[in-house]
Amino acid sequence: MRDKVNIAEKLAGVTEYFRPKIVASLNEMKVEVVKVRGEFVWHAHADTDDFFLVLDGELTVELEDGDVHLGAGELYVVPRGVRHRPRADQEAHVLLIEPKGTPNTGDAGGELTAREEEI
Amino acid sequence: MRDKVNIAEKLAGVTEYFRPKIVASLNEMKVEVVKVRGEFVWHAHADTDDFFLVLDGELTVELEDGDVHLGAGELYVVPRGVRHRPRADQEAHVLLIEPKGTPNTGDAGGELTAREEEI
Repeated sequence: MRDKVNIAEKLAGVTEYFRPKIVASLNEMKVEVVKVRGEFVWHAHADTDDFFLVLDGELTVELEDGDVHLGAGELYVVPRGVRHRPRADQEAHVLLIEPKGTPNTGDAGGELTAREEEI
Repeated sequence: MRDKVNIAEKLAGVTEYFRPKIVASLNEMKVEVVKVRGEFVWHAHADTDDFFLVLDGELTVELEDGDVHLGAGELYVVPRGVRHRPRADQEAHVLLIEPKGTPNTGDAGGELTAREEEI
């Protein structure tokens, strides 16, 4: 039997912002938790939608045609190919789902690109 | 721009137990909310894992080799092909993710099989 995942327990082990950690698999997708604070990089994922569910705090997903403001219990799916930048003025906790192998920085790359790591 | 999804607002419009409603799409997957109370049917999905995230209340996922007890903020992914039966003694609210076209009753069928409906 697989283990269940307690999200708060997993988040307690996360010490860096914008470094998603894999907590479960769903077919070819990875389910991740991430702590965010500050501005991420503008990027897009050409081949996949990008799922954000805010667990705690507030997250803004900047899009080229406007911002999406999310509070706890709100989710948003960025359509594939759409450039976006996550931003949080205060620490927020987010559940992410995207295909395994998808880099967090999409087509932007750079130093914020996180290694895939299970916790 | 797609709309964001406020999960509580969506759940407020759900009036029946074990009738998942689609609130978002993620590639070929459907993201659903469902209210559960009582026992569902034993079933399996031959071709897909089955994602449960408890939003409110408590959910038991019965498996043939033991039960998985989930509280709010806990998730579990039933591996493809594994027979399971969701059960909740009191009303619970759950987020589900599975491929579009996947029947909620898997291989069991029957009267609990829900039509796919977006809200």
